[in-house]
Amino acid sequence: MSEKACNNSSCDKTSCEGCPSREKPASFQVDANEYSCIRRVIGVVSGKGGVGKSMVTASIANELAAKGYQVGILDADITGPSIPRMYGIHGPAAASDMGIEPRLTKNGIKLMSMNLLLPAEDTPVIWRGPIIANIVKQFWTDVIWGDLDYLLVDMPPGTGDVPLTVFQSLPVSEIVLVTSPQDLVQMIVKKALSMAEQMKIPVKGVVENYSYLQCPDCGKKLYPFGKSHLDEIAGEEKLHILGRIPFDSGFAEAADAGEFDKVRNTWIETEFE
Amino acid sequence: MSEKACNNSSCDKTSCEGCPSREKPASFQVDANEYSCIRRVIGVVSGKGGVGKSMVTASIANELAAKGYQVGILDADITGPSIPRMYGIHGPAAASDMGIEPRLTKNGIKLMSMNLLLPAEDTPVIWRGPIIANIVKQFWTDVIWGDLDYLLVDMPPGTGDVPLTVFQSLPVSEIVLVTSPQDLVQMIVKKALSMAEQMKIPVKGVVENYSYLQCPDCGKKLYPFGKSHLDEIAGEEKLHILGRIPFDSGFAEAADAGEFDKVRNTWIETEFE
Repeated sequence: MSEKACNNSSCDKTSCEGCPSREKPASFQVDANEYSCIRRVIGVVSGKGGVGKSMVTASIANELAAKGYQVGILDADITGPSIPRMYGIHGPAAASDMGIEPRLTKNGIKLMSMNLLLPAEDTPVIWRGPIIANIVKQFWTDVIWGDLDYLLVDMPPGTGDVPLTVFQSLPVSEIVLVTSPQDLVQMIVKKALSMAEQMKIPVKGVVENYSYLQCPDCGKKLYPFGKSHLDEIAGEEKLHILGRIPFDSGFAEAADAGEFDKVRNTWIETEFE
Repeated sequence: MSEKACNNSSCDKTSCEGCPSREKPASFQVDANEYSCIRRVIGVVSGKGGVGKSMVTASIANELAAKGYQVGILDADITGPSIPRMYGIHGPAAASDMGIEPRLTKNGIKLMSMNLLLPAEDTPVIWRGPIIANIVKQFWTDVIWGDLDYLLVDMPPGTGDVPLTVFQSLPVSEIVLVTSPQDLVQMIVKKALSMAEQMKIPVKGVVENYSYLQCPDCGKKLYPFGKSHLDEIAGEEKLHILGRIPFDSGFAEAADAGEFDKVRNTWIETEFE
């Protein structure tokens, strides 16, 4: 444990004891920006894309912020970033000698994303994995996160470069797994679980998105992605179920309108202490 | 154009003239396996995961196979492969001095996927991008595709290593873009289009998946992912619309049961001549 003083003026700690972002990096871990004091890093992962991982990340962030915590979102989905637009935030981020300043959402969440550094939102990032992975490291080392209770890392899907880099370079304390009812997704989720196990990162639990849809006319419960296999897989893998989220076009509409800061998604359990 | 004779005994050409897989590689392009004679390579891409790209790839393959063409699917989604399981095919693939043998689906489609080379289906592939990209190249250079009219390449989402490698290393003649009605997806689709443009690969058209869902009880048309913006984006980008696919749990069930070879998805236009 480092006894190094915290340079971050808004941090109430006299030394950064107990703050994982100030701990001496072990193995491949890299140092956080010297003006950051981040108490807990939570990775939000999925084996496959399109399961609503960014929506879940932002929902957890909103709930934690509503409880009064200092929250940040590191959008590690470099080639398909969607977090800033959900909150109506468009680039660019400001930089100084001290580092890159995150942008602030209307509900006080700090954001950093590749989309805040691109000339235009629809510019593609056509880079090789190690360069992409380096950007993610920079989001940790060069971004002035300041004082944070929680930094949520929205990972790109799969088990490639970026998740590997995040797990190796950042002090991730636990991960939240996002899935959807499709069977194939479950196979792919097992890959993600198996990666977390190899990396020795505890799994907080699993959130199922797109669980069902209620017909607004006749009230019938529909299963557009098929019936869930969540109970089976949670039993097999001894996973805690953090929630099941129905199709709720209200969430999609809020994201499209850039007003996700107004969303309160109470389908997910967000007790991280 | 190479006048090299084709070593593939099932190929009816005396020389491989007109067969793009036998053309002299330009720039970064790599040679196909000497026993392959592949006339047309079609990339199936999406900016974002979970839009049903693999389902669209397999649907196009099924339609082309039903028309009597020789069809192969190269599953380039190394970290999240799903094609073999959709067809009920489980590893391993056989290899000889000549190369790796693709597996054959019940409807005669040749498949190669990382999942056919893994010790178990749910083993995660935790590799750096360039290694993953190399595997994809090997699927081209080392797999004995034999005589194919069409090789469909199911790309991983985004604009990272693998799409870059495929576009640089394989003679992709055109791409099919897969999208869903979510607005954010459209932004991300523009990234994919812009990448194709930079790589000078023509875009055949766009398929929208998860367009709507009909309530089986009251018949109401529901839009779980919100209303489509496809017409706008197709107009803006001068894209041809190849089809709109509703939620059809029949497709998901067939994929889950490993019986996708029985699926006839007639929502997509599959005229590639």
